[in-house]
Amino acid sequence: MSMTRQEIQDLCVKSLEEKMVGTTDKGIANGNGFYQYFFTNFPDLRVYFKGAEKFTAEDVKKSERFDKQGQRILLACHLIANVFTNEEVFKAYVRETINRHRIYKMDPALWMAFFTVFTGYLESTGSLNDQQKAAWMALGKEFNAECQVHLKNSNLPYVH
Amino acid sequence: MSMTRQEIQDLCVKSLEEKMVGTTDKGIANGNGFYQYFFTNFPDLRVYFKGAEKFTAEDVKKSERFDKQGQRILLACHLIANVFTNEEVFKAYVRETINRHRIYKMDPALWMAFFTVFTGYLESTGSLNDQQKAAWMALGKEFNAECQVHLKNSNLPYVH
Repeated sequence: MSMTRQEIQDLCVKSLEEKMVGTTDKGIANGNGFYQYFFTNFPDLRVYFKGAEKFTAEDVKKSERFDKQGQRILLACHLIANVFTNEEVFKAYVRETINRHRIYKMDPALWMAFFTVFTGYLESTGSLNDQQKAAWMALGKEFNAECQVHLKNSNLPYVH
Repeated sequence: MSMTRQEIQDLCVKSLEEKMVGTTDKGIANGNGFYQYFFTNFPDLRVYFKGAEKFTAEDVKKSERFDKQGQRILLACHLIANVFTNEEVFKAYVRETINRHRIYKMDPALWMAFFTVFTGYLESTGSLNDQQKAAWMALGKEFNAECQVHLKNSNLPYVH
């Protein structure tokens, strides 16, 4: 069953209702929680977080750095969900995200992998149904496609 | 006559249809054009652009730096327009924008002033009607309100 862009957007936005960004304790915890999940389940990827390569979930939880980083990544997810139907804006945001990550020299395969991590986080807190997960993976596929095009156009390593 | 958030969003998004972001010549020119307008009409503010303090519109037009900077600022305008009805996401994006500009030590009054500049740009190309302008100023007022709250909470200069 294929979904329209509008259906994908609506499902992704809805899935984030319980993971709102914000300056309240809950808003901050929603972002920090992503990194607790990430560092617990994908410890090999901690290498990209200089100074936090050996952080446990408990370290992340107490870390102001990951409160801020958590807000940033959660905001990015809200943004891509909310602008998905505005395709050129969505793709421009993807390119801007790639530009900002250039300095980290990431493995280009990680852009698609991110959506496994992020949906895993949403699932882990019980706030993701199968349809929403399928919507996020469909969005991720389009996100990743523009990532690889832009990496190639920027003369950076990309996934063929 | 007051507008709902949805009306404001729809009017702002619509006003940007002819100013789409993108990698085409037109997409790039849409962003670069903002800085041509900006540097021509508000030359005193060029001081915030290190190395370009004396740039003319012609210099901007030929500048790859302002092609990129133009895409970034135009994308930001598309994002705030597209997420306006999702109030917490909108405010989180405002805070993130403030955080990213911290290093430039901007006059806090410039956050509201930006919307005069931006609507001036849209008007200058003939693509803004009165209702759309009112919508952008209403959006700008909310944008600025969150700016000043966040500047204050960040112990930075703010407008009282």
